[in-house]
Amino acid sequence: MRGLRLTDGRFTLEPALPVPAAGPGETRVRVRLAGVCATDLALARGYMGFEGVAGHEFVGTALDGPLAGRRVVGEINAGCGACARCLAGDPRHCTDRTVLGILGRSGAFAEELCLPTANLLAVPDEVADDAAVFAEPLAAAFEVAEQLDLARFERALVVGDGRLGQLCAQVLLDADLDVTLAGRHPERLNRFPRRPRFLAGAFDAGAAPPDERWDLVVEATGDPDVTARALAVVKPRGTLVLKTTAARPATLDLAPVVVDEITILGSRCGRFAPALEALRSGRIPAATLIDARYPLERGADALAHAARPGVLKVVIEMPNPDDDR
Amino acid sequence: MRGLRLTDGRFTLEPALPVPAAGPGETRVRVRLAGVCATDLALARGYMGFEGVAGHEFVGTALDGPLAGRRVVGEINAGCGACARCLAGDPRHCTDRTVLGILGRSGAFAEELCLPTANLLAVPDEVADDAAVFAEPLAAAFEVAEQLDLARFERALVVGDGRLGQLCAQVLLDADLDVTLAGRHPERLNRFPRRPRFLAGAFDAGAAPPDERWDLVVEATGDPDVTARALAVVKPRGTLVLKTTAARPATLDLAPVVVDEITILGSRCGRFAPALEALRSGRIPAATLIDARYPLERGADALAHAARPGVLKVVIEMPNPDDDR
Repeated sequence: MRGLRLTDGRFTLEPALPVPAAGPGETRVRVRLAGVCATDLALARGYMGFEGVAGHEFVGTALDGPLAGRRVVGEINAGCGACARCLAGDPRHCTDRTVLGILGRSGAFAEELCLPTANLLAVPDEVADDAAVFAEPLAAAFEVAEQLDLARFERALVVGDGRLGQLCAQVLLDADLDVTLAGRHPERLNRFPRRPRFLAGAFDAGAAPPDERWDLVVEATGDPDVTARALAVVKPRGTLVLKTTAARPATLDLAPVVVDEITILGSRCGRFAPALEALRSGRIPAATLIDARYPLERGADALAHAARPGVLKVVIEMPNPDDDR
Repeated sequence: MRGLRLTDGRFTLEPALPVPAAGPGETRVRVRLAGVCATDLALARGYMGFEGVAGHEFVGTALDGPLAGRRVVGEINAGCGACARCLAGDPRHCTDRTVLGILGRSGAFAEELCLPTANLLAVPDEVADDAAVFAEPLAAAFEVAEQLDLARFERALVVGDGRLGQLCAQVLLDADLDVTLAGRHPERLNRFPRRPRFLAGAFDAGAAPPDERWDLVVEATGDPDVTARALAVVKPRGTLVLKTTAARPATLDLAPVVVDEITILGSRCGRFAPALEALRSGRIPAATLIDARYPLERGADALAHAARPGVLKVVIEMPNPDDDR
């Protein structure tokens, strides 16, 4: 199969990669459309020490198994199936897991991938590929709603107006919170019909921090210095959600965390069902975030485009001879 | 009145301090016994910029108001009474609060103090002064049980075998958790009839970290380097409770916090009622932690004694001419 192989920090189109072998209980999937995530860019910088086919945001067509012929999306963590975490229905935290295009499992920047059949969800007909490809990042944003009872909160601040920050803001608006988004690109907010309030540059280095405080703050930049600044605007007994991994350690003054009894909550992958439903109903029209699309042959250009400042989502279209959409 | 005044990092006995004036809704309390806390030692090093009479652990006798003549203990945070936090019953997080012997309010290392009458609790006759003086630090340990549903956890690790670490371990044992205490002084565990397992030196600089992981880890050393090491032994989706303020910022790798969806929870003062009940029933015989007692005249020696390595609780006895016990 053709695919984009990451080796030594570079993505290269390979014309004849081996098709990944499906293990027991797994389904082969022909990829239709894949999305580029900040994690893919981080992998190229050495994160996770990953080499091979990256890519974990996709919509495809199941080639075998009970969903054969159906369009599918898939949860990216594949547990061992035998440990206490897996048996409790949480393969996302299995310590022996593989992760699609991130850890020990060939990913979505290729014509085919494999995932446990249990990870796959059929995509409703109303959800076009351009929307379905957002199931994974939107599920990650919905993870905040799974971890926290959002009804407890009235006002939320999202720091970071990139892809994930925007999706988090949409999930919080969807839960009827009063949402402020801090970033540098007010024009990015035009993508969605429902818009948060915008706070420009308030968390940049040297900027005067806002006077306001929030019950719920979601950090979606992955910049550890921003994390420290975001911590300072959490109300007593409030919550700071860390939505993105940072490449270097953060230096945090934890005394206010103790005195104000603040909760810092790490948040990663989420369940796909609420995300697919938000896409199906049109409540969160995520496809509006697509800025550019590239064919697989120009996959390396797609990755370079996604790394440009200000760009939201870049997608990679796979050659699908039988594509009817 | 006589009292120990903190000025320029030194505690000095003053023979004629002004008696603190009771505000509206406040009760005057004659102090019987006061405990020395690590926070008092931190105040002497400049924490909070406090000058005046320190001390926030006490048992005394109410001199006026509805509890006049009764032995009392008291919650140390005095809210403004008018803000949303205070009206919701949480003066502990009022941004305009004063804090006994810590922030804007003369403390317990003197013959008299004042607190809002609503902060005071009568001490049951069965609870001797030596036990009652632990109401405040034991309430701080019980705060963990108020913030978390301890029934969700099976195994807990407390890092730090000082006063607060020991009390936290007792609260977790009281909730029937399987508790391990990491510290340097195994002999300290003999103070209590119910004892955690002991892990020696595992969080010291350069020590090999334990292979085990815990659902719940309570950091009770206040050393930011230990905090970083404690974070590394929290299970995926587990919780790290920060029980003590650190004097300097911590440098933390937050990527595992995100990937493993760990919760970091700051925890400070707690409600006194569960602490008083644990003392009354004898479930947590905290008075066994007392290592030394000094009269107020030798208060400076008491503070110096409390600062020695390995010492648990030092108490200061007030001159009470009408003491009948």
